[in-house]
Amino acid sequence: MIPILCFVGAKNVGKTTVLEKLIPELVNRGYRVGTVKHDVHGFDVDREGKDTWRHGRAGASTVVISSPQGLALMKKRTEEMPLDRIVARFFWEEEIVLTEGFKKSVYPKIEVFRKEVSNTLLCSKQDNLIAIVGDKPEESLEVEHFGWDEIDGLADFIEGRYLSKRKKRDAFVLLDGKRLPINNFVEEIITSTVEGLLKTLRGWDEPSDILLSIRRTNDT
Amino acid sequence: MIPILCFVGAKNVGKTTVLEKLIPELVNRGYRVGTVKHDVHGFDVDREGKDTWRHGRAGASTVVISSPQGLALMKKRTEEMPLDRIVARFFWEEEIVLTEGFKKSVYPKIEVFRKEVSNTLLCSKQDNLIAIVGDKPEESLEVEHFGWDEIDGLADFIEGRYLSKRKKRDAFVLLDGKRLPINNFVEEIITSTVEGLLKTLRGWDEPSDILLSIRRTNDT
Repeated sequence: MIPILCFVGAKNVGKTTVLEKLIPELVNRGYRVGTVKHDVHGFDVDREGKDTWRHGRAGASTVVISSPQGLALMKKRTEEMPLDRIVARFFWEEEIVLTEGFKKSVYPKIEVFRKEVSNTLLCSKQDNLIAIVGDKPEESLEVEHFGWDEIDGLADFIEGRYLSKRKKRDAFVLLDGKRLPINNFVEEIITSTVEGLLKTLRGWDEPSDILLSIRRTNDT
Repeated sequence: MIPILCFVGAKNVGKTTVLEKLIPELVNRGYRVGTVKHDVHGFDVDREGKDTWRHGRAGASTVVISSPQGLALMKKRTEEMPLDRIVARFFWEEEIVLTEGFKKSVYPKIEVFRKEVSNTLLCSKQDNLIAIVGDKPEESLEVEHFGWDEIDGLADFIEGRYLSKRKKRDAFVLLDGKRLPINNFVEEIITSTVEGLLKTLRGWDEPSDILLSIRRTNDT
């Protein structure tokens, strides 16, 4: 799976502002960047009265609107979709996903810190904290620190750690949406079996992206 | 892949209104329904100033916002995403997808027709037209017709034709987003090979949904 980096920090500390500077820096270096915003309170993107809003109100569980310039999707949930599933399902063209929030996830975290807003850090090395952006906290630093203007350095750090040594192949399997834990050896077996199986079929043309889906319905 | 049914018709003929009545009828019968609205002019779901809007403006190609109640996604495109790819990627929990628009697609079509709005039908049997909803056109009917109030009958027709004889297994393969044409025999081989391969691994627990992704990057 592609690298996921979580930008965490207290409310109003400036997480969006840091992302607003970092995203164009990574895009300028040639990477496609995706983002996921965590919203615990619920949100409302669609507008009352629009056709898609009417579809959703009538009971559609997933509503998509598609045009040549873009695509938008709205999905109703009864529980939150796990971050790894979100990334596996929705980010197939990006090289990295930056999140705003998700401080409880297992993924590497960069904390945005401002003394005026809070006294101590939210996360520590035990939470997979890898860097701090903004003010220097009082406590002794165990991780990298980048000042408010050091977005360039932050981009270098992210690039060196997560983007320059990308694997040539990246395979994963989701079973009922949960990622199957596989090591490199098993990944190699699965990849070569599936590629070998499909190679003999018409339509195969050295694709760089293979997606295989099997779904069973428990009808009686 | 799950059944896709396209609701087509002239502008302002009442497509959304028909869907607004049909969706709850199908939902009440126990089916999960998804919709796709085709928009040729482009649209704007996100609101200026919101965090997700700022991520997109900064250059993120895909932006997701996730909460326990729902998930929304915005993807920038340089060309339209084909309908089969949209359905394969985004609708894994639904039993049927109804579209508004997509009159040029290959999928079965139901035309909404109103004499005040147009004189003739947009589609014919050659375009995979399977039914007409609304006014009865002058031309001789080659397909089923349902009046404005016969949404129940329309739901019966859709259920009988697309929902009650669902296959117990549904598998497909996308290569670079394009669906690989496979017959039942090949589908069986692929399914049993992949399931056989994964069954021996820890984490396998008779899943009803398997998603396998292989991606190769052409780095130098």
